[in-house]
Amino acid sequence: MFLARVTGSVVSTHKVESMVGQKLLTVDPLRIDATLQATLKPLGRTFIAVDLVGAGEGQIVMIVQGSSARMTDETAKLPIDAAIIGLVNEVSAHGKEIYSSSTSA
Amino acid sequence: MFLARVTGSVVSTHKVESMVGQKLLTVDPLRIDATLQATLKPLGRTFIAVDLVGAGEGQIVMIVQGSSARMTDETAKLPIDAAIIGLVNEVSAHGKEIYSSSTSA
Amino acid sequence: MFLARVTGSVVSTHKVESMVGQKLLTVDPLRIDATLQATLKPLGRTFIAVDLVGAGEGQIVMIVQGSSARMTDETAKLPIDAAIIGLVNEVSAHGKEIYSSSTSA
Amino acid sequence: MFLARVTGSVVSTHKVESMVGQKLLTVDPLRIDATLQATLKPLGRTFIAVDLVGAGEGQIVMIVQGSSARMTDETAKLPIDAAIIGLVNEVSAHGKEIYSSSTSA
Amino acid sequence: MFLARVTGSVVSTHKVESMVGQKLLTVDPLRIDATLQATLKPLGRTFIAVDLVGAGEGQIVMIVQGSSARMTDETAKLPIDAAIIGLVNEVSAHGKEIYSSSTSA
Repeated sequence: MFLARVTGSVVSTHKVESMVGQKLLTVDPLRIDATLQATLKPLGRTFIAVDLVGAGEGQIVMIVQGSSARMTDETAKLPIDAAIIGLVNEVSAHGKEIYSSSTSA
Repeated sequence: MFLARVTGSVVSTHKVESMVGQKLLTVDPLRIDATLQATLKPLGRTFIAVDLVGAGEGQIVMIVQGSSARMTDETAKLPIDAAIIGLVNEVSAHGKEIYSSSTSA
Repeated sequence: MFLARVTGSVVSTHKVESMVGQKLLTVDPLRIDATLQATLKPLGRTFIAVDLVGAGEGQIVMIVQGSSARMTDETAKLPIDAAIIGLVNEVSAHGKEIYSSSTSA
Repeated sequence: MFLARVTGSVVSTHKVESMVGQKLLTVDPLRIDATLQATLKPLGRTFIAVDLVGAGEGQIVMIVQGSSARMTDETAKLPIDAAIIGLVNEVSAHGKEIYSSSTSA
Repeated sequence: MFLARVTGSVVSTHKVESMVGQKLLTVDPLRIDATLQATLKPLGRTFIAVDLVGAGEGQIVMIVQGSSARMTDETAKLPIDAAIIGLVNEVSAHGKEIYSSSTSA
């Protein structure tokens, strides 16, 4: 899985029928800054993920990729390869808290 | 999944039998420009995807990869790892609409 | 799937039994040149793919990756993650034919 | 599979129900330094993996990715694409021991 | 699949039970040098693969990745995403033999 920030959303009215009603969010994967190891840095890539936890723009989330994105009741039969499966409260690294949803803008 | 622009098409007359009749389009994955976060930028890669929604050259589409590309009735038994599952009407990011099929050339 | 040029072949006499008899070709993935959008450029990577369509060195082919490479009768039980599933006759991009097997050296 | 160093942990209280109770660690993939071939170097990427072996921060571990992360009794039904399946005692390369958990800080 | 050189081995005594007894080798993926097309060059990455053919350090091998690594009797139930499925005798590219196990150091 990977950490990502929700950056926006996608509207697709003409799509495969099974995808109708799915909430499609754009996400930018994050990594723990290798040098200072104290911040989360964006990779500058863009994926579309089906939202399963009510995520909103700007939030840090946990994404699962590949066939495992279909391992929930809601997504079992969907043609999807990425899903948001958790809202992230905290990330700790190298003994320090480097992200907390309660203190982050 | 990812955003992509349809760039062209592939003709393959000598192919695995189950692929006969499938519409094969070339696509270039897109990302939301990390700096201005207001445009979609091509990655400069080329994938071939089976088209399930009648996409045309130049259109922005949603692509699913891997085994999930087989999660539709039409593609369930095909040896494919990428399918176009939606035409994209709008992409919003950072509170702004950054793409709309109705206003884009 | 992706476009690739067949660059050569691999001989492996000591291998997992189910792979005996499989034709193993090396391929170099191709992309549509992002600048001029009129030629196919190699990525400079090397994959091994099982050949299902009688491809030869120098030919442009269509490759499927991952578990989908097992979605043919011949490969269903094989430990393979890449297969050549089509010989490419033509690639068109941005309204122009940028490759044709009949006119290419 | 790949080698990685455990760098920290993720707390997600609002997540897909099946993920409740899973220990989520952040890991940084490692490679054997290509030049000297005598040390393990971080790639500077960040993945989240479910811990199946009681790993702790700083430890070198073995990670499995993709659907194979579900090939254990504990993870068979989980929407996960990465799991820690081993604590690494030793890595030898080019005839030398380049890492040993007993002598490493 | 891809070509790789075996670079070393991993010892992990505390691991998921089903992995006990599996031989774990480190491998460095190879590509055919794009310029001269006459040698095999390492990518400088490190993967761990389960050895199914008795490979030794320095040997050139064929690796399968993903769920397909489980498509052998020995690995069907293992949480693995990479397996060595062949010892490579020869690699030919662009009409020349560029590697032969019988003449290589």
